[in-house]
Amino acid sequence: MDLKQYLVEKKKIVDRALDRYLPEGAGPAADLVKAMRYSLFAGGKRLRPILCMASAEAVGGHGASVLPAACALELIHTYSLIHDDLPAMDDDDMRRGQPTSHKVFGEALALLAGDGLLTEAFRLICSEELLKAIPAESVVKVVSLVAEAAGYKGMVAGQVADIQAEGRPADKALVDFIHTHKTAALITAAVVCGGIVGGGGESQIAALRSYGRKVGLAFQISDDLLDVEGDSEAMGKTTGSDIRKGKATYPALLGISRSKEIQKGLVEEAIASLDIFDERADPLREIARYIIERKK
Amino acid sequence: MDLKQYLVEKKKIVDRALDRYLPEGAGPAADLVKAMRYSLFAGGKRLRPILCMASAEAVGGHGASVLPAACALELIHTYSLIHDDLPAMDDDDMRRGQPTSHKVFGEALALLAGDGLLTEAFRLICSEELLKAIPAESVVKVVSLVAEAAGYKGMVAGQVADIQAEGRPADKALVDFIHTHKTAALITAAVVCGGIVGGGGESQIAALRSYGRKVGLAFQISDDLLDVEGDSEAMGKTTGSDIRKGKATYPALLGISRSKEIQKGLVEEAIASLDIFDERADPLREIARYIIERKK
Repeated sequence: MDLKQYLVEKKKIVDRALDRYLPEGAGPAADLVKAMRYSLFAGGKRLRPILCMASAEAVGGHGASVLPAACALELIHTYSLIHDDLPAMDDDDMRRGQPTSHKVFGEALALLAGDGLLTEAFRLICSEELLKAIPAESVVKVVSLVAEAAGYKGMVAGQVADIQAEGRPADKALVDFIHTHKTAALITAAVVCGGIVGGGGESQIAALRSYGRKVGLAFQISDDLLDVEGDSEAMGKTTGSDIRKGKATYPALLGISRSKEIQKGLVEEAIASLDIFDERADPLREIARYIIERKK
Repeated sequence: MDLKQYLVEKKKIVDRALDRYLPEGAGPAADLVKAMRYSLFAGGKRLRPILCMASAEAVGGHGASVLPAACALELIHTYSLIHDDLPAMDDDDMRRGQPTSHKVFGEALALLAGDGLLTEAFRLICSEELLKAIPAESVVKVVSLVAEAAGYKGMVAGQVADIQAEGRPADKALVDFIHTHKTAALITAAVVCGGIVGGGGESQIAALRSYGRKVGLAFQISDDLLDVEGDSEAMGKTTGSDIRKGKATYPALLGISRSKEIQKGLVEEAIASLDIFDERADPLREIARYIIERKK
């Protein structure tokens, strides 16, 4: 299969759906929608929604049926980036080659745009569109899974640990905690939700969960590696900021070469998790391999 | 009925439930849970959860059955206060007689505590407890209603308009927009969700929605009035801050006396909305009257 072509096609579908789910606004809060859309359409790779669709297809479902859940995950990912970039957090001025939300709209509006995106994600999952595709029981399960992955026992916990670990000595247990919570939790939710909405059985969901955890962790390691080795221009942001901020990362703790070994092992394990699936899981397999090769 | 007694009893039930739903945490993100609990147990009146329970009882349901939804509304209200108090927003150091979250935990943790509370609210609504009481379809409806009321077309829109109106001339349409979105939307969601979980019929839900809108608006007007006329000590924060910040409020726009007239009218209309209910709606009626008399 041609992964590049696959990613381009799926990204188009996700972008169109996002534009439909969050159209331009009017009235006294029009700037809010503008700020939400600014970050939502700032060049994201749409990895989480694409993984969600690919998982639905792997279990024999239709990719398009998961769009509300898939796009909800992108809203949540986007909110987390906006809040992460705020001066009180990572204080980043640039992301994907563009000024961050608070540089364009000010801190108050950036904060509220993040709040709006997060809240809308849950409304979107509960919209008529998904209720037509799956039973209400499954919708409730998706909300619950996504909220758990994104919340104070998942992504937000990872962000807290990440911030608190800055400039302090970190051991592998802490770096693992940060990475599995900050990144892998939401990526795992993406593939599990795709499996649920696609109609997957229990063993399929379990396999997807295992795949998600490993791919999610591998993805965060490549993020760490790109911050050390990556090209600032390709990344659209200043690299090397993790070292400057004293972030707890794999390369900082274990070195580049050992980090790459671990990452390679995770990708192999992720692909092995998919053994029970046929060729319809090929996109998931290729995405796992792509994580090692990506340049941005 | 004895409203004071009713409020004390219900508050106890809500406080116990909140403590059960969000217990102390451990591990690398223990501070996050500490920050979430700090604001959650900082002396809130629990108006939204109590309204939610009272509405369930008004339609003949059990107050306790709505606790997950009722407490979810309190989590959302609490998150909104934490974010509202941040330096980038209203920059308030004190609330309810205690230092605000960012004064105690720093801005990053306060921000993330808010994010955690908001996200957990949706997980809580989808927990087993509520699924045992009502069908999954109704759970989906509750998530959807709450997300819409709290999100970028509801509370967050109101906060944006509120911030943007600071120091600028505002007309009544704008002040109405701010108040109905910032405050009345979530209060309306509280009573409507109570009605749904309590098993109310369509006309009952419609009556509760009308009650919620009017009570919510009246409540925000009393907030505005207390900022002008209230006692700093009783309020636990410095009063007069709306005027200093040039906030768009009823008293600022229409004066104290006209604001009180409008508020009185709203409370009367709110109570009239409840005509179809029997004495089981008395707590809702009394709460509406209490809004005018409250001193904090």
